[in-house]
This record gives sequence, structure tokens and C-alpha cells, in this order.
Amino acid sequence: MTTEQRLDRLEAIDEIRQLKAKYLSACDLKAIDDIRACFAEGEIHIDYGMLGIHKHRDALVGLFDQLGNHPHILDSHHGQNGQITINSSTSADASWQLHFQQINTKESTVTQLMGFYADKYQKIDGQWLIVSTVFTVKSTQVHQIKDGNIEVVFSGGQMPMPPVKEG
Amino acid sequence: MTTEQRLDRLEAIDEIRQLKAKYLSACDLKAIDDIRACFAEGEIHIDYGMLGIHKHRDALVGLFDQLGNHPHILDSHHGQNGQITINSSTSADASWQLHFQQINTKESTVTQLMGFYADKYQKIDGQWLIVSTVFTVKSTQVHQIKDGNIEVVFSGGQMPMPPVKEG
Amino acid sequence: MTTEQRLDRLEAIDEIRQLKAKYLSACDLKAIDDIRACFAEGEIHIDYGMLGIHKHRDALVGLFDQLGNHPHILDSHHGQNGQITINSSTSADASWQLHFQQINTKESTVTQLMGFYADKYQKIDGQWLIVSTVFTVKSTQVHQIKDGNIEVVFSGGQMPMPPVKEG
Repeated sequence: MTTEQRLDRLEAIDEIRQLKAKYLSACDLKAIDDIRACFAEGEIHIDYGMLGIHKHRDALVGLFDQLGNHPHILDSHHGQNGQITINSSTSADASWQLHFQQINTKESTVTQLMGFYADKYQKIDGQWLIVSTVFTVKSTQVHQIKDGNIEVVFSGGQMPMPPVKEG
Repeated sequence: MTTEQRLDRLEAIDEIRQLKAKYLSACDLKAIDDIRACFAEGEIHIDYGMLGIHKHRDALVGLFDQLGNHPHILDSHHGQNGQITINSSTSADASWQLHFQQINTKESTVTQLMGFYADKYQKIDGQWLIVSTVFTVKSTQVHQIKDGNIEVVFSGGQMPMPPVKEG
Repeated sequence: MTTEQRLDRLEAIDEIRQLKAKYLSACDLKAIDDIRACFAEGEIHIDYGMLGIHKHRDALVGLFDQLGNHPHILDSHHGQNGQITINSSTSADASWQLHFQQINTKESTVTQLMGFYADKYQKIDGQWLIVSTVFTVKSTQVHQIKDGNIEVVFSGGQMPMPPVKEG
């Protein structure tokens, strides 16, 4: 590789690392526009398991608005162990692990998910964007708080999820 | 940007990433001198919310010495989702999330804080240093262990903190 | 440093960051061959504290196979606060923190370890590999789930571990 190509590659890795950080942080900040801006505009592939398969960023934003965008939802999406592969000047893959925690102050629950993202990125108009993201749950813990005590609702792998209800 | 400028920028991002890692690790290792060395020497801005606003790194070190520097305090400060912006050859901003956990073996408590850092850095005498850091709590969990059982003291957003007592 | 040397250094830092991410992810995916491939082939130094000192990667793989490679073990190894120092074109050091969680669905336990890795890497045949890794536990929590309640088995620093039993 030329000096130029090596710099391009290192800059791409950094940009993608920051893109995923921006997406995960935007979820926790309930920053809807920032969430949307992390994905390509056209048809994409978002497979969030029990949270459904979505073909457009607006569908994901709608889902987030329904499930997460409430004052009683306190989410932490923390990205771990990033492995980024640059395939070409406009195409890249990455694997990330997620440490997710949700405190729901209305239901008095604390939910933890650990899992893996398999992502694809494209550089479109000079900007790296997510074009495919598949999330797989590896472990789940759900705690219900009652009178200051913790009741363990679930502790294991993928929890059978009830159908998504409107928040 | 020239090749030189692009290299400078990538090196700055890496150095700042490692600077924050050094600061957070130094807190967990109770390495007072390393904590101090992460901040600029003159007047700076440290806003740690309920832990006060401090204008000099020695004030922060004093606070850490009082609150954290004890054998019964087992802290984990884990930095998440770093987003680093280089503004010039000597100025940079960053956003970080924090996963903080404290086991207090004397009081038999386990405290978790999730939150965001908004940081500013300057390159002084060839070294990137923190010149401003503002921490905002997003969620808090405090557990009291009694006879092998967990009593949930708090689970929610920012916990109203009692006044800081000497350790 | 020349442009070439600066690029080499930045690429080494990135490769080592991804190597550690690959190792930790491989543990969670029970990807035995990927675990092995992160270490140099000859005599190395692996000191995992209560999990023993190992001089060859095959010994570590054997240990993992015994302790971790079971359907009832759901591990999360999340690397934190990486600090990587490139010593030469073929030698590097790093410090990492670990957030480890294990759900054991057979024993109904949840174990958390926080600690530090001190690592050494060498570039062998064009590839960075782990040649020395020392893990030190900083805090431990072990929860036993019984009838939906949590019994705190341990909360503190290094837990005195029972001898390793075959899984």
C-alpha cells in the first residue's frame, strides 16, 4: 500500500470506531437525529433479533421512539472489543460486543443484555455509514425490584420476549 | 491536509484515547501521581456534579485521596464509546461514557454509575492534557448487602447525594 | 520518526487493539481456534492468577475447554481502557482492564470479575501476537440465584477460589 492508502485505511478505522460510538451514545442520549444520521439513507439491513428486521433507518428510529424515548427509560449501550476490517476504500465490516443495561423507573426493572453486533459499513459521499447491522443476544438478566428487594425474572441466554407493546 | 497533518491528527486521537484510559485506570489503581499527571498544571475546569467543581488538579487529587484512596474502596472506572474531535494541532474535544462500579467492603455497598464525560484537551509542551472535564450522571444503582441479601437503596437517574464526609 | 515509522507505529497500535478484542471475543464465542491464534506458538508466559501459570497456548486452550467451553457457561470478556506502548518494530506492551461476567445456567450463579491485564506482544512473521499476559483481579462478586432471589456469596477483592474441578 502507498502512504496515502495506509493513511486512508487508518482514518477509515478511526471514523468507523467513532461512528459506532456516536450511534450507541445517541441511543443513551435519546438523540433521535443522531441515531438516524449513523445509517445510510436508502435500503439497509437492520436485524435486531426480537426487536425485528428493518429495511430503512426511519423504521429503526420509529421503534426507538416507541420503546426507548421515554423519561422512565435509562439506557446504557456500551460498545466493546471492536474489530474493524477495511475491505476497500468504500466498504468495511466490523464486529462489536455490546453491554446493554436498561433501568425502567416506571416498571422498577433492570435489564442487562450482552451480545454481538456484526456490521457492514459503506463510505457514501465521503462519510462512513452503517448499511447492515445484525445483533445477536448472548446473555440476558432481568431483575424486578419490589419493596427494595430484587426478584430475578430471568438469568440466561436469549429470553423469550413478549410482543413489543406501545410505550 | 498534508501527510504530516494527517499523521499528527491520527497520533493526537490515539494519544487522547490513551490519556483517558490512563486517567481512568489510575483511579482504579489509586495511582495518585498518574491521576495528577493527566491534567494541565494551571487553572482548569473539573465539574464532577455532586462531587463539586474544581479549578486545579490538586483539588481533584485531594478529593480522590479523601473519597477513594482507601483499601475498602474497590473502584472500576471503564471508559466507553469515545468520540474524539481534533480542533487544531493543540486543541481537542471528546465525549466518553463511563461505567463506574464501586464495591465498599467496609459499608458492604455496591454502587454503579453510568454517565457522560464532556472533555477538552490541550497539547502543552508536546503532551496532550485534560483542561476541562464535565461529568453528568445518567443512571445510578446503590445496593446494600445485609446477611447475604441485597437491599436496593436506589435505582434510577441522579441520586440525591448526601454531603461528602471524610473517609 | 519518518513517515514510514509513524505509520508502522499507528498500524501496530491498531493491530494490537484488534488482537486483544479478537482474543476476548473468541472467549465469549467459545472459538477455540481463534483463542489459540492470538498467542505465539513457542514458549510464552500466561499468568491468570488462581487459574494458574501456563507456558504454552495449548495449555490455556485446554483450561478454557475444561472451564468455559460448555453450553451452560455464558461469558462476557469486555476489554477496557487500553494503553498500548510500541517499544520497537517487533515489541510492544499494553495494559487493559477487564469487565468479566459469567452466567452459569447449571449452577444458577452470576460471577463478575474486574481486573487488569499486563501484556507483552511480539511481531512474528508479520503478525502481532501475545507472548506474555498477566491478569490481576481487583474485585469479585458472586451471586447465587435461589427461588428467584439473589444470595451474595462474595463481594470484595480477590475471592479465595476452590481448586479447579473438571467441568
